[in-house]
Amino acid sequence: MRAVIPYKQENAKSRLAPVLTLKEREQFVELMLRDVVCSLREAGVKDIDILATSEYSSLFDLDVNFVIDPADLNESINKYLERLDQPVLIIMADLPLARPEQVKEIISSEEDVVIVPGKGGGTNVLFIKGPAGFHVRYYGMSFRNHCTIAKDMNCSLKIYDSFLLSTDIDEPHDIVEILLHGRGLSFGYVQKKFELESGRARVKLSSLH
Amino acid sequence: MRAVIPYKQENAKSRLAPVLTLKEREQFVELMLRDVVCSLREAGVKDIDILATSEYSSLFDLDVNFVIDPADLNESINKYLERLDQPVLIIMADLPLARPEQVKEIISSEEDVVIVPGKGGGTNVLFIKGPAGFHVRYYGMSFRNHCTIAKDMNCSLKIYDSFLLSTDIDEPHDIVEILLHGRGLSFGYVQKKFELESGRARVKLSSLH
Repeated sequence: MRAVIPYKQENAKSRLAPVLTLKEREQFVELMLRDVVCSLREAGVKDIDILATSEYSSLFDLDVNFVIDPADLNESINKYLERLDQPVLIIMADLPLARPEQVKEIISSEEDVVIVPGKGGGTNVLFIKGPAGFHVRYYGMSFRNHCTIAKDMNCSLKIYDSFLLSTDIDEPHDIVEILLHGRGLSFGYVQKKFELESGRARVKLSSLH
Repeated sequence: MRAVIPYKQENAKSRLAPVLTLKEREQFVELMLRDVVCSLREAGVKDIDILATSEYSSLFDLDVNFVIDPADLNESINKYLERLDQPVLIIMADLPLARPEQVKEIISSEEDVVIVPGKGGGTNVLFIKGPAGFHVRYYGMSFRNHCTIAKDMNCSLKIYDSFLLSTDIDEPHDIVEILLHGRGLSFGYVQKKFELESGRARVKLSSLH
């Protein structure tokens, strides 16, 4: 099996702009990616592809393969899947709370397809045992899309229920979860910049500086 | 073992006011409570206490015990725990995505204490094998509080990772998750009132009428 991580650094995470500058966001997405790669490695995943529109020399120390494709997310993943003849784990780069144990559990599932839903209808992790003929449809209600695609292909399907893996980091309040449940590089990064503001309701983010 | 569900119907869920009227919110919290009770029953939990400031005659068909206490959440739960000499599952009433399998797994854990974190630092479910001497501290960063309390008591601790159980329904966008992952009564209720609005980012809620 192999894992693929779609990745884009330029002007990444625009919805975090209220709390992080462009340069900070670009640093931050790299650290989140490194945390994801680290969890994959600890789970024993040897072959990791970074699917991107260009190579990032700052990531050469990671010992991953770059698959360069200028197409958009869905098109580039679907082209990638067409060429593949082994099980694949598609995992997003903005999941710094991913733990090795979870990756292990997902890639050793009995089912043909495992979907880890993200908040708001997304697909955060997608494990496909037989990618031949499978296609992805990210954005919007991709969780439903992928359930439908798996069923249409008569694949057995597991919905993997995880708060940590449901937490993709898109909006400022998502950073709260890194402060509360994070480890790794992205945790170190946000810890230097933010603190938690606690009232009666959900904890909020506030800047340290 | 027994389960206790703190419950308040009057003027409940004020943060849902942008999308539901007061009367609708009061109906909706009752349906969510019924879904939680249903999951507990299906998980084999026989003794269920509803901890409230007054009895609700509309709930008499549920065959639960009412524990009436005018005190606030923390004080009333702590008084409740003091009188208890058996394992207890404290589960919030606004967790309509709770599944029986999860309840079963939590109450059969080997650890002394199981904490299910909610979004934004909350504690959505708390299982305590030996409640003698334990106390709760809800609101704000209660997840951290309860981890600390368990450790201070030298209890073995499990953090139970679940997206479904992390989803307490407090804000309009939380209702999106009921539409996507719900079953039961609360799902039927929100399905009649809302639909999903899909773009590139997280799915949004929009009213049907």
